[in-house]
Amino acid sequence: MDAYKKAGVNINAGYQLVDEIKQLSKNSELGAFGGLFALEELGKYKNPVLVSGTDGVGTKLLVAIEAGLNETVGIDLVAMCVNDILAQGAKPLFFLDYLGIGHLDPNKAKKIVAGVVQGVSEASAKLIGGETAEMPDMYTGDHYDLAGFAVGIADKAKLLNKASLRAGDALLGLASNGLHSNGFSLVRDILFKQHHYSLDDRLPGIDQDLKTELLRPTRIYVKSVLPLVDQGLIGAIAHITGGGLPENVARILPENLAAEFNYGSWPVPTIMNDLQKIGHLSFEDMKLTFNLGLGMVLAVHPENVDQVKAALIESGEAVYQVGKLVTGSQEVLIRKD
Amino acid sequence: MDAYKKAGVNINAGYQLVDEIKQLSKNSELGAFGGLFALEELGKYKNPVLVSGTDGVGTKLLVAIEAGLNETVGIDLVAMCVNDILAQGAKPLFFLDYLGIGHLDPNKAKKIVAGVVQGVSEASAKLIGGETAEMPDMYTGDHYDLAGFAVGIADKAKLLNKASLRAGDALLGLASNGLHSNGFSLVRDILFKQHHYSLDDRLPGIDQDLKTELLRPTRIYVKSVLPLVDQGLIGAIAHITGGGLPENVARILPENLAAEFNYGSWPVPTIMNDLQKIGHLSFEDMKLTFNLGLGMVLAVHPENVDQVKAALIESGEAVYQVGKLVTGSQEVLIRKD
Repeated sequence: MDAYKKAGVNINAGYQLVDEIKQLSKNSELGAFGGLFALEELGKYKNPVLVSGTDGVGTKLLVAIEAGLNETVGIDLVAMCVNDILAQGAKPLFFLDYLGIGHLDPNKAKKIVAGVVQGVSEASAKLIGGETAEMPDMYTGDHYDLAGFAVGIADKAKLLNKASLRAGDALLGLASNGLHSNGFSLVRDILFKQHHYSLDDRLPGIDQDLKTELLRPTRIYVKSVLPLVDQGLIGAIAHITGGGLPENVARILPENLAAEFNYGSWPVPTIMNDLQKIGHLSFEDMKLTFNLGLGMVLAVHPENVDQVKAALIESGEAVYQVGKLVTGSQEVLIRKD
Repeated sequence: MDAYKKAGVNINAGYQLVDEIKQLSKNSELGAFGGLFALEELGKYKNPVLVSGTDGVGTKLLVAIEAGLNETVGIDLVAMCVNDILAQGAKPLFFLDYLGIGHLDPNKAKKIVAGVVQGVSEASAKLIGGETAEMPDMYTGDHYDLAGFAVGIADKAKLLNKASLRAGDALLGLASNGLHSNGFSLVRDILFKQHHYSLDDRLPGIDQDLKTELLRPTRIYVKSVLPLVDQGLIGAIAHITGGGLPENVARILPENLAAEFNYGSWPVPTIMNDLQKIGHLSFEDMKLTFNLGLGMVLAVHPENVDQVKAALIESGEAVYQVGKLVTGSQEVLIRKD
């Protein structure tokens, strides 16, 4: 394979990586033509529905690459996918990852995939396959892209359904772990292009340096929220990603309801306030780009609020009653008074 | 969203694209947090197993980008994934795609996804979701990467199993549609770096220009091969991708068998012979990089060979008896005498 290696593709590095991923994931079947997942517990489901999601990490990757810290973007990757599946009321079953990279360095790839393995574990799912594509000339320098695919399952009748929502339902916000994996093109533009911060700098009010703050992994809400879904205590879930509260909460609203958030009823992460100041961002830009501190928003009937809050706190979540559903036409209002 | 747009991310272009993909795929549910797939026909399966695969198109994308012909790489993407699922004996159910792109041009993205929709249709599957990630600074110029994810299903007892293979089983090769989606870093190195061919040039013995020859989409074998799997006529399937016949056929061999191919018993595409000559490739390089004209290899008990060949020809495949299984230790031998 001299010619192929000279052309920039190192097949042996790929094989070495597969062996290492097998060990990391404790799944010796990796490397087959397709990943297998036996639907053994199907008896539990009357009308099983598979719920699938795909996502990437976005340009947060460029921060990880620049910082040389590739250990946690895999957690972000899994989080972006499994939180979407959870938002439908489904239980994540398995995950596959795609790594596109210019030059395959097995040690670096192993660190990336170790993050995926950790994320999959936090989501109580299983890594059953993946692809590492060495693509010289497509990715320049150290660049790589990462895409993930998750599949979950739910009983059709138990999928979260916006028809169950009522005016007066509470909106509970679960604290995000900072920026998560959205808005990074704007973040990088403000910090590194408009201004010339270094990844070792600290922003006002933040103890950690920028690389640590920016790279904090997206929170995975599966273990704390799924049991409440199973108990029928949750009406709907919005996973707050690109588009922020307005776009993502709008997706759970039926035609006759609107969402009202009381700005100030939850803490906005300091990094976002700093970015607003440094970048002279309008609140419009802020709310459509960042999660404003809420990684997930749950719509809950008033009679279930206390039980849901208590259970979430018990699971280690920071939870805030951030607003409510009102009669309307799918508006998402963030009241600042 | 002025700030985000200035930072290189056009959210509205993304929304426009989702609308267009909904129309293309005739799936109005696209755009939800997760794609849904009801397992309605589960009654047919005693012990259902989901089979998943993820893959990309590799640097064939760079040829498509250079040629400005982005309409068929989506077919390649689907083919790479669903042929892997078929290789396990499973039926592809649904597909999701991930498009990472530097600057989102909805018209171009629409062309790319139209290829995905066509591929999914050829595989009798359903496109239930996808992600388009606009990542300025990650992808330079017109570059984009494409990853796909397919899920299929099979009854556990009907998954193809290497234990069913016997010495004397015939190896049937299904003609590839040229290079498919492998070896393109080498192809590009030979044609465009070592030599300075243009995409409009013609190679000896090939009527079409290079861009047409190189971009011919990977063949999707689902419709022709799956019915034979369902009838129990196929012992094992190797999908010939990166690593060629040696690596991919080795994956279907049990410990006590080897595969013997008779080189010359099937036509090697002219493009590969041209590349060997122009690039001074050893046969070793050739066989480990290219499919040598066989996109899929089936192991079939001798008593079923005539029926399988007839059915494949009837389905429009070009099929060749290319070798047989012999006693051995998982060697893959390509006999040139």
